[in-house]
Amino acid sequence: MAKKNAKKSKKKDAKRASDDSISSALRVTPGFQLSDLDPTATPAFSGKKQDAAEAMESTRAEIDDLQERLYAGGRDGDGPAILLVVQGMDTSGKGGIMRHVVGAVDPQGVKLHAFKAPTAEERRHPFLWRIRRELPEPGYIGVFDRSHYEDVLVVRVHDLVPPSTWGRRYGQINTFERSANDKGIHLIKVMLHISADEQKARLAERLERPDKYWKFNPGDIDEREHWDHYQEAYQAVLDKTSTDENPWYVVPADRKWYARLAVQQLLLDKLRELDPGWPDADFDVAEQKRRLAAT
Amino acid sequence: MAKKNAKKSKKKDAKRASDDSISSALRVTPGFQLSDLDPTATPAFSGKKQDAAEAMESTRAEIDDLQERLYAGGRDGDGPAILLVVQGMDTSGKGGIMRHVVGAVDPQGVKLHAFKAPTAEERRHPFLWRIRRELPEPGYIGVFDRSHYEDVLVVRVHDLVPPSTWGRRYGQINTFERSANDKGIHLIKVMLHISADEQKARLAERLERPDKYWKFNPGDIDEREHWDHYQEAYQAVLDKTSTDENPWYVVPADRKWYARLAVQQLLLDKLRELDPGWPDADFDVAEQKRRLAAT
Repeated sequence: MAKKNAKKSKKKDAKRASDDSISSALRVTPGFQLSDLDPTATPAFSGKKQDAAEAMESTRAEIDDLQERLYAGGRDGDGPAILLVVQGMDTSGKGGIMRHVVGAVDPQGVKLHAFKAPTAEERRHPFLWRIRRELPEPGYIGVFDRSHYEDVLVVRVHDLVPPSTWGRRYGQINTFERSANDKGIHLIKVMLHISADEQKARLAERLERPDKYWKFNPGDIDEREHWDHYQEAYQAVLDKTSTDENPWYVVPADRKWYARLAVQQLLLDKLRELDPGWPDADFDVAEQKRRLAAT
Repeated sequence: MAKKNAKKSKKKDAKRASDDSISSALRVTPGFQLSDLDPTATPAFSGKKQDAAEAMESTRAEIDDLQERLYAGGRDGDGPAILLVVQGMDTSGKGGIMRHVVGAVDPQGVKLHAFKAPTAEERRHPFLWRIRRELPEPGYIGVFDRSHYEDVLVVRVHDLVPPSTWGRRYGQINTFERSANDKGIHLIKVMLHISADEQKARLAERLERPDKYWKFNPGDIDEREHWDHYQEAYQAVLDKTSTDENPWYVVPADRKWYARLAVQQLLLDKLRELDPGWPDADFDVAEQKRRLAAT
């Protein structure tokens, strides 16, 4: 029995090591320059679109199992949680990640929140107030479609608050994320990185197809004028908030199929790292069997 | 062109009529007796488990398309919403519906809420207070795993409030649901109907498998003692709150695969009935194309 387990565990390790490479390749390390990363690249993956779809399909059962264990472990109000933060320029494919990666997870264990421009009430509070309220409970996979990082991205680009205010926020964010870690929340921070040309093509598609009009906003073109400024603001985010505890992963996203595979892999790696066990029974199993049999 | 559309529409109607039959067969009509319905039956479906899985798979693309239209239509803050209410005894398969039916829908357009025993704060408010807060916004598919009906089910069985209080709630619920209709919310009310024997088997399975312990609660056996009383309480719900506007559908649920197919079909029929169109552009498409080209 011990031998069998050892064998099983070795096999698992081998698989882990190979799959891990996408995560390693995308992890931001000191000196990383966004402008050096080709948005059409597919780091640590040599396959094509169809291979990526198959690779995603092949790990679905494992994600399912690990996610259910995570959820089960949260039942008594403690245990870890995961928070997937997804950022990226307009049309970078955040919606596709929600639909195809998050959508593959049991919805009972997911808390998805899309952050829009803050409401009047939210603006009356510190910028992290509305974020704290959406942190995942134990056992859950929280998903942020945009996040507190907007407060150093759009806010910085348009100087919506004084520079001294947004300048302080990087440190506040790092502190906030460490405090989330202390509550058992494990962050996966993802930036979907597209090229300006790809954005142009995707916006053009929204203007060509009546079933895509609803996704188009004339303001998207105004924002496009600030492309370089946004890239700078993203670079600052990566420089200042990619820490050992809460690193960023920059995902080349001109190929949607790669971005989806990569984010699914990041989620899988985090679940494997947590490797949650099934909770023990908090009742006497034999006694409950007797009680049930008597009904 | 007109001819082509007429043909297309006839074909669509034919398909609709045949698929509609599950919904028609499950809809509660005056005089319906829960005790007459065989929980192992598969009304209006002659296939087996594998056929049901294929039938579910075959309508997924249509649901996807209709759901995206529904969501798009909600973007400007009006347009319809759907609310799927799922009730049933412990182990009746509510979780499986969430996982396999709700889980097949784009999570961006779904708001799932599982109602637990009310908190201290919730108990200080009228019973519908916490329900109102979870009603879906335009464009969304809201999903209630348990609901306001618990306030005339567990509450009635255990007399958690005086009979005169729960007795008034049926009328309050009907009024509340009509007011939700007035806001554009279309309800689908589903009761998953299992037999006492099937419940016993499912509870026994939870006690056999360590990966199921976390789903077991010794209180489930206590509740089982009140089986007949619960069936009476469900019958009263069906008698008093299955209205023309907001009918109940009772789904035989001893066969999980049938229950999932049936609920998916109810959702699909409601989406077809709403048949949401893509919203018109609220901008000048040609002008935006010119602006984009200039970037």
